[in-house]
Parts: sequence; structure tokens; C-alpha cells
Amino acid sequence: MKVGVLTGGGDCPGLNAVIRGVVRKGVQEYGYGFVGFKDGWRGPVEGDTVPLDIPAVRGILPRGGTILGSSRTNPFKTENGVRAIKDNLAKAEVDALIAIGGEDTLGVAARLYEEYGIPCVGVPKTIDNDLSATDYTFGFDTAVGIATEAIDRLHTTAESHMRVLVVEVMGRHAGWIALHSGLAGGANVILIPEQRFDVDQVCAWVASRFKASYAPIVVVAEGAMPKDGDLVLKDAVSRDSFGHVRLSGVGEWLAKEIEARTGKEARTTVLGHIQRGGTPSAFDRWLATRFGLHAIDAVRDGDFGKMVALKGTDIVRVPIADATARLKTVDPALYEEAGVFFG
Amino acid sequence: MKVGVLTGGGDCPGLNAVIRGVVRKGVQEYGYGFVGFKDGWRGPVEGDTVPLDIPAVRGILPRGGTILGSSRTNPFKTENGVRAIKDNLAKAEVDALIAIGGEDTLGVAARLYEEYGIPCVGVPKTIDNDLSATDYTFGFDTAVGIATEAIDRLHTTAESHMRVLVVEVMGRHAGWIALHSGLAGGANVILIPEQRFDVDQVCAWVASRFKASYAPIVVVAEGAMPKDGDLVLKDAVSRDSFGHVRLSGVGEWLAKEIEARTGKEARTTVLGHIQRGGTPSAFDRWLATRFGLHAIDAVRDGDFGKMVALKGTDIVRVPIADATARLKTVDPALYEEAGVFFG
Amino acid sequence: MKVGVLTGGGDCPGLNAVIRGVVRKGVQEYGYGFVGFKDGWRGPVEGDTVPLDIPAVRGILPRGGTILGSSRTNPFKTENGVRAIKDNLAKAEVDALIAIGGEDTLGVAARLYEEYGIPCVGVPKTIDNDLSATDYTFGFDTAVGIATEAIDRLHTTAESHMRVLVVEVMGRHAGWIALHSGLAGGANVILIPEQRFDVDQVCAWVASRFKASYAPIVVVAEGAMPKDGDLVLKDAVSRDSFGHVRLSGVGEWLAKEIEARTGKEARTTVLGHIQRGGTPSAFDRWLATRFGLHAIDAVRDGDFGKMVALKGTDIVRVPIADATARLKTVDPALYEEAGVFFG
Amino acid sequence: MKVGVLTGGGDCPGLNAVIRGVVRKGVQEYGYGFVGFKDGWRGPVEGDTVPLDIPAVRGILPRGGTILGSSRTNPFKTENGVRAIKDNLAKAEVDALIAIGGEDTLGVAARLYEEYGIPCVGVPKTIDNDLSATDYTFGFDTAVGIATEAIDRLHTTAESHMRVLVVEVMGRHAGWIALHSGLAGGANVILIPEQRFDVDQVCAWVASRFKASYAPIVVVAEGAMPKDGDLVLKDAVSRDSFGHVRLSGVGEWLAKEIEARTGKEARTTVLGHIQRGGTPSAFDRWLATRFGLHAIDAVRDGDFGKMVALKGTDIVRVPIADATARLKTVDPALYEEAGVFFG
Repeated sequence: MKVGVLTGGGDCPGLNAVIRGVVRKGVQEYGYGFVGFKDGWRGPVEGDTVPLDIPAVRGILPRGGTILGSSRTNPFKTENGVRAIKDNLAKAEVDALIAIGGEDTLGVAARLYEEYGIPCVGVPKTIDNDLSATDYTFGFDTAVGIATEAIDRLHTTAESHMRVLVVEVMGRHAGWIALHSGLAGGANVILIPEQRFDVDQVCAWVASRFKASYAPIVVVAEGAMPKDGDLVLKDAVSRDSFGHVRLSGVGEWLAKEIEARTGKEARTTVLGHIQRGGTPSAFDRWLATRFGLHAIDAVRDGDFGKMVALKGTDIVRVPIADATARLKTVDPALYEEAGVFFG
Repeated sequence: MKVGVLTGGGDCPGLNAVIRGVVRKGVQEYGYGFVGFKDGWRGPVEGDTVPLDIPAVRGILPRGGTILGSSRTNPFKTENGVRAIKDNLAKAEVDALIAIGGEDTLGVAARLYEEYGIPCVGVPKTIDNDLSATDYTFGFDTAVGIATEAIDRLHTTAESHMRVLVVEVMGRHAGWIALHSGLAGGANVILIPEQRFDVDQVCAWVASRFKASYAPIVVVAEGAMPKDGDLVLKDAVSRDSFGHVRLSGVGEWLAKEIEARTGKEARTTVLGHIQRGGTPSAFDRWLATRFGLHAIDAVRDGDFGKMVALKGTDIVRVPIADATARLKTVDPALYEEAGVFFG
Repeated sequence: MKVGVLTGGGDCPGLNAVIRGVVRKGVQEYGYGFVGFKDGWRGPVEGDTVPLDIPAVRGILPRGGTILGSSRTNPFKTENGVRAIKDNLAKAEVDALIAIGGEDTLGVAARLYEEYGIPCVGVPKTIDNDLSATDYTFGFDTAVGIATEAIDRLHTTAESHMRVLVVEVMGRHAGWIALHSGLAGGANVILIPEQRFDVDQVCAWVASRFKASYAPIVVVAEGAMPKDGDLVLKDAVSRDSFGHVRLSGVGEWLAKEIEARTGKEARTTVLGHIQRGGTPSAFDRWLATRFGLHAIDAVRDGDFGKMVALKGTDIVRVPIADATARLKTVDPALYEEAGVFFG
Repeated sequence: MKVGVLTGGGDCPGLNAVIRGVVRKGVQEYGYGFVGFKDGWRGPVEGDTVPLDIPAVRGILPRGGTILGSSRTNPFKTENGVRAIKDNLAKAEVDALIAIGGEDTLGVAARLYEEYGIPCVGVPKTIDNDLSATDYTFGFDTAVGIATEAIDRLHTTAESHMRVLVVEVMGRHAGWIALHSGLAGGANVILIPEQRFDVDQVCAWVASRFKASYAPIVVVAEGAMPKDGDLVLKDAVSRDSFGHVRLSGVGEWLAKEIEARTGKEARTTVLGHIQRGGTPSAFDRWLATRFGLHAIDAVRDGDFGKMVALKGTDIVRVPIADATARLKTVDPALYEEAGVFFG
């Protein structure tokens, strides 16, 4: 038995832990051989492989990024992409494929299995935690931890000066990182893509915070949008690849609006890629390692077209399509629950 | 409506986050008043209270420990303890009590409700994660993170020298911290209280590790015991308050045994109380805050005798007795799953 | 003997450690009384004071910000400012004043002593490390540590994707944070305010890095400026209060230039205020504590008009004017030394 | 020109940063070739080498430990050790040797140069900071940071319970880590090897602390000894390789003494090897990198028998013998300065 492994999409702390879990158990318990495909689906499309064995995965558990590299190559948008994959899997004598990735990467795996019978197992990955069918994905806890630590640090400045501090965190379509880090960090306003915000309401929270104690901290997901955003922000908005309207630099924009409307100074921190880099948290290593161990079990069981998922404290298997069918966004009730801390 | 709050047992990162969540929601959404009882059940027994309002909980979210203090006072082992509690609750005009604590603290709350009709709501707390009826308790994630970071640091020494490194972590009766941190830290041996270990097997893993790459790291829960421990370790064992045999300083003892049997140098790190101190992780703040928000909802609903619990990503309510009925120990299958990384 | 204490200018990790050192030694060894003035020079100008004794400084050592608050009030730019200070010091029966702050705050202290005989001792503070006459100021080590950790995290993304990562760090007039964190973080390009940069040279380094291994990380101080900046950047530049030309958002601007000229994707992280917040590093606590202990010794010795300073491992006293006479900028030779790591 | 590099003695965060600095500058600016000797002086004695070039040092800056391995081999205690070194250097065509290590490693380098004319340059390394002739050595700041973070965590437990917490830190012959981390962490008692401690005095501080606020934290260097230690502690003491009396497990011993004499519970944390492992602090990376850059400059200048050293903010060169002549211990005045925080 020979198993191919690839990682696709944006990088995410825990990818290497998955790879290590897959290979350690596959080699030691089942005697499988492995081959790594480089840069997501580009690897099988172009036949670009690297050796993957126990020495190759030694020491990678605590390291961010992915030893296999990543890309956004989509074989269904590449001429003869699927045929090339079939040829290259045959050439590499690969009997099954483990695809670690987000919506796009897993979507390809699901179609390759359903339409072409290529035996794929999926491992869900998204820093944004917006994949359905799993309680959490690895990388999310690390990102929330980094954002929370940043908010912690801003509190001391907020205590010493009279400035509004705006923190822009990741989250284009879902506000999980903003919600969790905002709650954990004691933010005074949390703005998420799921609910358009009212700048006047934000300013009212800011004002009430100044009255109650010290300067407010506003956490805003990069995909959050003001009401009437399309009209108000002629130049600042753009459309992303999904055709959604996007506000470029919402943190900076919001800080300026707050300054203009409240007369208070406002400063912005844009955390950017530091949220998805570096060593995974202990939780993410645990989750990613277990995902790896269970993904190779699915291969052994011939249970293809499935992906591993977290349910409570258990790792289960679900059809890949369950994860990619729709985005997992923040439940309005959950957002409202957090509202007690606003202002 | 006036609500009393107390924290009992060992301290645990997240206690203050619970208190803050309870008070913020209780005051702002329900208009309740609050009173803090000092040092666990000692507070209501002796009528020792502190004011508890929004200013009192400001800034405590990221702080370890508990602003209410803690103790192991048990009113059922105190003369007229229950009567004193009833009197003091009446005197303080307290209509309901939120008890945040582990097995002992919650056990008292359950009996006070069932036997004396005192309206109690519980919030589960244990650094060791060994309470049933909840997926996780706050504090555990922080402890695992601290232990994992320590193991990370030991790897570089292990790479540079030929020494066995033993890390003793918390866990008297359950090996959750050892298992999670050992897996997340890439330990080569993990020993837990649930399964007596064979020193020769440990030495075999140590030897195989030396052969494969660099020096091994052994994570041992403080409550782990060797096979035949009672006979072998005349002086080192003691009996704890439950009558269980306990090996004092198992980490140090094991290091000496490994040195004697393998001829390799071994060094011990005893993490001790640093695992339960300091700022809570983002996950623990999130969990503890939500526990607080839901505990005050249980009070509002008059749903007494219950405690809040985590099920997947939801906070639910379960009878307190479900949590205290039996210790949640590591499932043998889960321990075996980790075994692929041993040696 | 009664001593007033104030903190002025931007906040900086370690301010509280200085205050604690001053008060602990002053009370316990010399039997002095203390009074805190609120918000820098605003306190003595307006007679706004807070009690300052041993209980007031308990637990503040590890906390960022300042318990005394801060502002940029300058009594020499306030009508009757100096007279108000004299009156308020007399009213509070203050015999000496310890002023903790940067160029502006210390400059006021020096003039008050020299021109009006008000007995002042200074403690140097600047996150940017740009004060002369002291090897380091507290806060700087913390800021460098935070920036370095951010750069560390970006490396894993750089390894997994083919993107240029730009990190904008603090430093308007001096590049110390950029230089230290860039060197400690293994950045591939470091840009500082002391030397105008050539965008084509930056792009050449970026290209050579891509060839050698993985994607480059560019650290840029917020005050760094391209050659011909004034002409090229009509809209992006502004003049700060010193009349210096300033490029607003140099990180974002540079990322766009790199994208345009090299065709590679570029992403920006703006660390902002998180560099000056949160708990001080161990080094900064040690330095700030010792500054406090030595500042109160200067008061005891009647050695006014002086500030404490670090020389090697010793705390010495120097005339305040030595620190404020000129900005301590990065020596060209030191910057050149770092150049071996560029590209 | 071909340069050999070796690392000797205990591992220390920053060793890899030195190696990288040496190689990057040597190759890029001077066109030198390099060879790595394995495991300290064992490498040149046995002719055990590894290739050392720019790819070999890529990515090692943030990693603890040493890619060259380490040992305590002393060629002067090995039969024909010096002759073997001369032969192996000739065979490897090595023109100069950079030895990175502590007292022992540097002492060998000094003798090889002085007695046998082997062209050596030294780089000082000691986690304990006890080498003369340099303000600091790399690794020390990292160790102090780790110990300080541990002490920070213990404060929250100390606030919540009535327990004495003892932290044993590194430092056999010098108390630098204990002093710096104790001061930075706000410890209530600091005990160092340079001054024998009086257990009754320790208990008095403990008692006064309990009275003033919350439970005390005692930081004790592993080499600290009680007065009359030799007589009192028959079994617990041993003699180290220098013939000095050593108390094994002083932290554990002291906790028991405090319990016995004060009746208060006491708990011990032994940090052990986690103080010398893991990623170096930003300060240590900066210092180690600059040591590397200046060491290769010394080779270029033919300035042998010297080692690089930190003086203030400058890197200078001093005779190796200046560093190894005597241990740099804590000045009594400095220890007394810290005494204001005891009790």
C-alpha cells in the first residue's frame, strides 16, 4: 500500500502535525509506504513529489507551515488536470490520497472520488474555523491565541492613554477569530462579517466605555462591513473572487471614522499573517495529530470520500461534502451572547 | 434577586473569568445584586463576604487565581456547618448560590440543594480535566500549554546531549495533562496513573529512541505508579487522603531507575504549581466566560442542582451529581492511540 | 522628606516597575513619604495627585502601562504652568520630584531644576531606545521581543507560500527596534529612518532571496523613507510636529511598490501599539527596578538635575541635559554590520 | 582560508546564532570555507567533521541547542589529544579554529594557542553568566526570562492559597539567574551560592510576607547552601568535580525545612533543563549573532588567543585568559540592593 499526501490552500499551524501523524502510524502500524506531493494539487497534476518517510517527519510537530508546500492550483481549472492526476498517481504507484486543506482543496478531493473513483480521504483545515461538519479545525486555536495576546497588550496602553485601539483580525467570511479573541481579550466592541455594523452604534459603545473606565478596544474581522458599505465607501471597497463586496483595510477605515465622529484619537493594529504562522498551540497539535492518526485509519478501512472531523472529544468520519456544502458562520445567538461585554 | 458566588479547591486559570461573566450578565441584563463569599465554603460557613459588582470584576479576565480566594473547607465536616450556611445566606439576603469548584466543592453544592433545598448552581473546575459530564474544564488547556512549552524547550537539550529528560506533570488520579502535553510536545514515553508502568518497558523505549535519533523525553504524571510499586518502593510511597498509594516524586525516582538500568544520564524537571498559575489561555477564557454567562442564566431560570458543562461547542446544563459520580479517567483506547509515538 | 513621582509621554513597559522600586526603597530604607502626580506634568500643573505608598505599588511590577497615567502636557507651553507647579508642590509639601519620561518630560525636568531650582531627578524612558547617555532604556527590550516573535511567525508562512512579507515596526526617528528585531528575527531586509532606502535595491534583495531559498521578510521602521520620498509620494507624506517629512503607512506603501515592481504578491503586518503594551520582559523589569532604586538614592543624596542611566551593567547618574541634547540614532557602521544578512 | 568551528560544554540558547553569524559573514564577505567539528573538542580530537556552509546554517537562528553537538571532552585529559588535534586540523586543512564554549572549552583554546600555536578565537558561552570579561553571555537572558515567567505564574497561586512556593533555578557557583529572575519576578526571598543562607532568616521573611499580604515566593539557586550546611545535611550534600560541597535538591530540602519550622505548607518547582532549552530571546539572538560576526573578524585580523566580549553595547576582543581566570560571581552590594524586596 502506498499513500500520497498533499496540503493545499493557505498555510495553517498544525499541517506538519497531521503529516507526521499520518506517516508515523501508517509506517509503524500498517507498514505503508508514502509519497509527498508538492504544493497542493499542483503536485499530483505535475507529478512533483518528495520522499515521505519517518526521518522526513522527524522534528516537524512544533513547526508551522507545511513541509510539502502549498498552492491554490485547481485541477478542474487546469487543462487535462484530472487526467494528469490519474497518470501521475499511477506512475507513483499511489493507492490512496490524503488531501489536507480547506473548502477548495477538499472540494477537489470529493469530486475526484465521486466522479473519477480516485480514493481520497480529507483532513479539514482552515484558520478561520468556517468549515462545517467539524467542531473545530486546527490552526484556529493558535490564531485566536495570537490575537488574544495582542489584545492583552493593548489593554495597558488603553489604561494609560485616552485612545481608541482598533485591532483588525482575520476572517473574510466568518467572524470566529474576532469573536473568540474579542471575548477572550476583553474587547469592548467586536465586529464580524456575518452582521453589518452601524458606525454610530460603534461610536456609542466607544463613548460609553470612555465614561465607564478607560479607553476602548475594538476588534474587527477583516471581512466586516458597515451598513450601507457599498454606497458609503466608493474607493475602499472591492469585490473578491466570490463576487462579494470587500472593504479593503476596514480597521484603518474604521479608526478614521471613529476619530471623525467622536473627536477621540484612534490607532490601528493589523495583525495579518502573524495569526497563521509560527508554532501551533498545544490544542492544535493534539487535534492535528489525531486527525492524522484517524485519516490513515480511514485509508486502511477503505473509507474513501470521507474526511475526519472533531465532535466533542471524538474524531469521527463524515462525507467530505458535508464540510464544503456551506460555510460555518457565527450563529446570531452566539454573537448576541457576547454583546453583554460591548460598550 | 441577590446571588452569592464562591470558588473552592485548588486554584485554576479561568476562575476570575467565570466570576466576571456571572456578574456582568447578572447586573447588566437581569439587574441582580451580588455578594462574594471568601475562600470557598469557608465564606458562607463563617459569613465572610466581599462586595461583588461591576467595578470589582473589571480587569480580572486575564488574571489567574481567584479574587474570592479559595479553601478546602467542607461544611459537612464542620460542626453546624450547614446551619451556619443557612443563617449566613439569610443574613446576606442571598437568593441563590453559584459554586465554582471541583468534585468536593460541587459535591457540597449538590447535597445542600438536595438535602436542604439551598438553591445552588455549579460551575465545574479542575485543572486535571477529570470531572465527568463535561468535555473539558477551564484551566486544563492552560496547564497543557505550559507543560507542552516546557517539553518543547527540552527537545533542544535532548538534541545536543545524550541525556534522558524526565518531566513530571500534574495528574494524581487522571493522566489527561500528561497525555495531551506528551502528545503535543512529541514526548517519547507518556506515563499515566490509569495504567501502571513497567520500568523495563520504559527503558526499552528509551534505548530504542537513542538508537533512532536523539535523546528521549519521558512525560510522567505525578500519580503514575510502576508495577509492583507497593513492594518495590518502601520509602517513596505514601497514602493520600483517599487511601490510594502515592509515589512521592515519581519523576526523580524514575530518572534514577533509568540511570541505574540503562547507564544513561537522566535529568528531571518538576513543573509543579506553574501549571496552574498565570494568565489563562484564550480557550480557557472563552470557556470560563461562557460558563459564567450560562450559570447566571440557570439562576434566572431557577434551574438549581445543575451545573453548566461543555458538550462539543455548546454549553449545556447537567445534574451536578453527573459530574461528581465518578472520576473521568483516560480511556485505554485513547492511551493506546498515543502509543504509536512511544520509543 | 516627601517625594513626588510622575510618568510622562507614551506608555512603556516598565514604568510601574520604576515606581515600585522608588517607593519600596524610599519607604523601607529612608522612611520617605510619597505622592503620585497624575498624567505626567498635568498632575503638578493642576495639582492632581493620588496616594502613593507600599500597598499602592503591590503587584504592579509585571504590569504594563502606568498606574499614574500619562499625558504630553508641557508646563512651559501652559499659561502660568511653572508657577502652578511651584504652588502645587508647596501645597503637597513635596521636597523633590522624580520625573519618569522621554525627551520632552525630561527636558521639562531639566529646565525646572536649572531655571527655577525645583529639585528634580529624571528616569529615562523611551520604547524607541533613542535617548542618549544610557546604553538602553526599559521598554525597548520588550518591544524588540514582540516584534521578533511576530517575525518568527511570518517565517513559516514565508516558507509555505511565495509572498513577500512586510512588517512595519515602531521607530519614527531611530531604527533601533527595526534593527534589533530584524537581526534577531532573521529578516532579509531592514529599513531604518537614519538611511533613506532605494526601492530598487529593496526589490533586488527580494529577488535574490527568492532565488536562494524562500520568500523574503522585510522589516521597516515606521519612520523609514524612500529616496526622493518627498517628490514621489505626494499624498502619502505628511510633516510631523518636528517639521520632518513623514510617510504615512510606509509598510503598506512599500508592499504595493514591491508588488508593482517585482510581480510578487506582498502582504503587510502593522504591529502598532502591541509593541509598547503588556508585561515587561525580565530584562526591562530588572532595568526599570534598578532605575527606581537608584533614582531614590539620587534624591537622598540631593543630587538633582541628574538622571539615572545604564552603562554596561552599572546604573550611573548623568546630567539630564546629556540625554536630551541629541537623539541617539543607529550608527552607520552598526547598520552596515547587519547588511551581511540582507538579500 | 578554511575555518573550523566547534561548540563545547552544556547547551545554551544562541549557539546556533553564533555559528550562523560566523558562516554568513565568513563566506559572503571574506570568501572563507568552513568545517564543523562535532561534539566540542571530541570533533578535532577524533577528526569527526560535518560540512558547514550557508545552506547548513539556514533556519537555525531561532533554534536552541547546537547543530554541531556538544560534549565535555578535554584534549588535555585525552591521551595524545593535542597531537590528534594538530593532525586532524592539518588533514582538514583548517587554518583557524573558533571555539564557542564556557570556562573549560575556552581554557583548552587558550592553552592550544599559547602552548602549541594553534590559531584559536573564542566565543564565551555560559547560561549562568559567570564568565569574567564580558558584561553578559548569550543564553542567560533566555534563562532569566523562562524563570521569571515561571515565577509570574506562581504569584496567582500564592494569591489564592496560603502556601510557600519555592522555585529552584540554575546556578551552581553563581547566583545571577536567581538574582535577576527573582528581582524581575517579584520574589520575596532570593538565595544565591555566593552567600550561605540562614534558614531562620528565610523563615522570618516568610512570616513577615504572610503578615503583609499573600504567600511568599522563594527563589533559590541550585548551588545555594545553608549556613552550617556541611554539618546539618549529612546525606543531602555531595562534592562536585571542583571539590565544592553541593546540596542535592536544595529546593526540596528548603521547602521541608520551612514547613517544619513555620507550620505552613510549602511546594517546590524545579525548573531544571527547561531554562537552557528552546528558542533564544531576541536579546540573546542579537548578542550571539554579533559575537559570531566579530569572531570571524578576529580570524580575518589574525587576532588569535582572543575572545569576543560584550562591553556596554560594543563587542570587543579580550585575551581568553581574562575570561577563564576567575568566576564572575554576584557582587555583595548588588545582592544587598535586591534585599529591599525581601520579606
